[in-house]
Amino acid sequence: MTKIAILGFGTIGQGLAEVIATNSEKIKAQCGGIEIKYVLDLREFPEHALGGRVVHDFNIILNDPEIKIVCEMMGGSHPAYDFSLKALNSGKGVVTSNKEVVANFGPELLKAASDNNTRYLFEASVGGGIPIIRAMTDSLRGNEICEINGILNGTTNYILTQMKSSGKSMSEALACAQSLGYAEADPSADIDGVDACRKICILSAIAFGTLVPSVKVDTVGIRNITTQDISDAEKNDSSLKLVARATKLPDGTISMSVSPTFVRNDNPLAAVNDVFNAVLVRGNTLGDVMFYGKGAGSLPTASAVLADVIDLVLCEGHQPKQQLWERCENVISSLPSDAFSDYIGRVGTPIAH
Amino acid sequence: MTKIAILGFGTIGQGLAEVIATNSEKIKAQCGGIEIKYVLDLREFPEHALGGRVVHDFNIILNDPEIKIVCEMMGGSHPAYDFSLKALNSGKGVVTSNKEVVANFGPELLKAASDNNTRYLFEASVGGGIPIIRAMTDSLRGNEICEINGILNGTTNYILTQMKSSGKSMSEALACAQSLGYAEADPSADIDGVDACRKICILSAIAFGTLVPSVKVDTVGIRNITTQDISDAEKNDSSLKLVARATKLPDGTISMSVSPTFVRNDNPLAAVNDVFNAVLVRGNTLGDVMFYGKGAGSLPTASAVLADVIDLVLCEGHQPKQQLWERCENVISSLPSDAFSDYIGRVGTPIAH
Repeated sequence: MTKIAILGFGTIGQGLAEVIATNSEKIKAQCGGIEIKYVLDLREFPEHALGGRVVHDFNIILNDPEIKIVCEMMGGSHPAYDFSLKALNSGKGVVTSNKEVVANFGPELLKAASDNNTRYLFEASVGGGIPIIRAMTDSLRGNEICEINGILNGTTNYILTQMKSSGKSMSEALACAQSLGYAEADPSADIDGVDACRKICILSAIAFGTLVPSVKVDTVGIRNITTQDISDAEKNDSSLKLVARATKLPDGTISMSVSPTFVRNDNPLAAVNDVFNAVLVRGNTLGDVMFYGKGAGSLPTASAVLADVIDLVLCEGHQPKQQLWERCENVISSLPSDAFSDYIGRVGTPIAH
Repeated sequence: MTKIAILGFGTIGQGLAEVIATNSEKIKAQCGGIEIKYVLDLREFPEHALGGRVVHDFNIILNDPEIKIVCEMMGGSHPAYDFSLKALNSGKGVVTSNKEVVANFGPELLKAASDNNTRYLFEASVGGGIPIIRAMTDSLRGNEICEINGILNGTTNYILTQMKSSGKSMSEALACAQSLGYAEADPSADIDGVDACRKICILSAIAFGTLVPSVKVDTVGIRNITTQDISDAEKNDSSLKLVARATKLPDGTISMSVSPTFVRNDNPLAAVNDVFNAVLVRGNTLGDVMFYGKGAGSLPTASAVLADVIDLVLCEGHQPKQQLWERCENVISSLPSDAFSDYIGRVGTPIAH
């Protein structure tokens, strides 16, 4: 029985507790079982089965040698980054669903993990339950990844699907997404492409070993998309999607963008609707492979966290080396027009963010 | 530098040599490099760069302690199975693309690997370059897999796509597939669903730990599909696809079938066209995830073989334990009608095979 700690008992943290309880037999068969010893949160959860395990001081977790794995699901950069770094430096494995921390501090955390013979795993940070990160890390190894194209934000994809299927305006579709809980009261991180941008930065770092700061990526959201844009796409036998894209150009430059894009209907991304996410990866000898699933949601995301936890448990004593990430501070070009082999154009101009 | 042997220098074997040559820098960075020391084949290849490494006696490979990994890409059950078993019993890792051997002898080969602290890996046996097997083994662990639905045969999917898009008859579309090299002169293994059946048996064994003999699976191919069937599907807002399916019923029974199926157009499998394959997996807490890509082809399939080889190299000295497969000899029910939640019906009656 491996003892773990959960940092942050929100939607995903509680989801992890539920997934571990639901699938306890399967987990036991795979790795001898997982027990949640501590839950760190500012709040109390007197009604929850794990209410008695809530602590408010991270040092209790840090100083408990029984805790081998810490699952960080707090959100935000701080103190999530600081706690993750401390845990890694004390030799504990860290699993996260927090894309902001991975996109901002991945290089430092991967380095700390490597220095301490442990791992920093983040499958749940991109694409919810879609196992895209392990696929790119393990299954596509031996391939040079040439290009990644993803629909990485479920909220905007839901809004665009609604605009197309029922003729709603952008603001009507957004209100609908908010009423269903798919969009936040302040939807700007989704609508303006910032969330998708962080995710493509993570995928690009895995593919190319270089983390581009998200603020350097040409990012256009869907805020100004009109029903006219949607019907223009249809007239061109295409669908309008918010596509996040990273390409390695022949000169080695990494070119990245997030923007509303006319995707031809014969491209598999065109058929990805509602809150679903998909990532299309092109390998030099593999060709195109696509991974599709729900990009968010408590249980799918928690399932991805759990897969990482089991991976750490199974490799105890000899964690495989992870690829380290360099930081790229150079100017990143936006995509040249001839890179749009499977697309017919972008809509809108980049925002400052 | 890890030294490997290739058994069978046909399309995939030569593809592996090409992928290793093309991506040698990347491979070296990942695992220190891979060298093909022997190629076993009945033929000579005087024009090929590896022509000087061709041998005709398997014992040369078996008795060379430098060979840590054997890649079996011979096709057929024998001697592929026999050579694989001998290699595993001598402690060598074995990687295969041979679905017939995995579907027929998976339990024995996995047991031999386990007994000898090595592994038998077969990512390339299903879905070509699509990393479906590693995803189901590693990334979906911790989930109870409830159901698998796959378009697992590119030839039949190409034929059905042609019948739909250009109104060709079954025999016209087959002739077209043959002229393009997508179908063999004797197309029965594809057309009658036998190939798809072997693949769903492998996926089902990974998901449920039990290998169902392919001859026990209700199998209907596309031989008798007419343009009327195709248009009936369209009238029902569906697409006709050859769907291979495995479900675990509430009583623990595994229910499997291969049959032409009306797939609703809102199911992501409906948009999978031409020679592409896709596998839709439902986990109890993960929900639906889909994996999509070219299900065949020399370089994509060889890329999957290479990923397995690198995995074996990276784990040298402490290969993770693989799940063993039981054999299931009990009667398998065909799917009950109420299992077709995302479908509207099957077309045709099972063949004997």
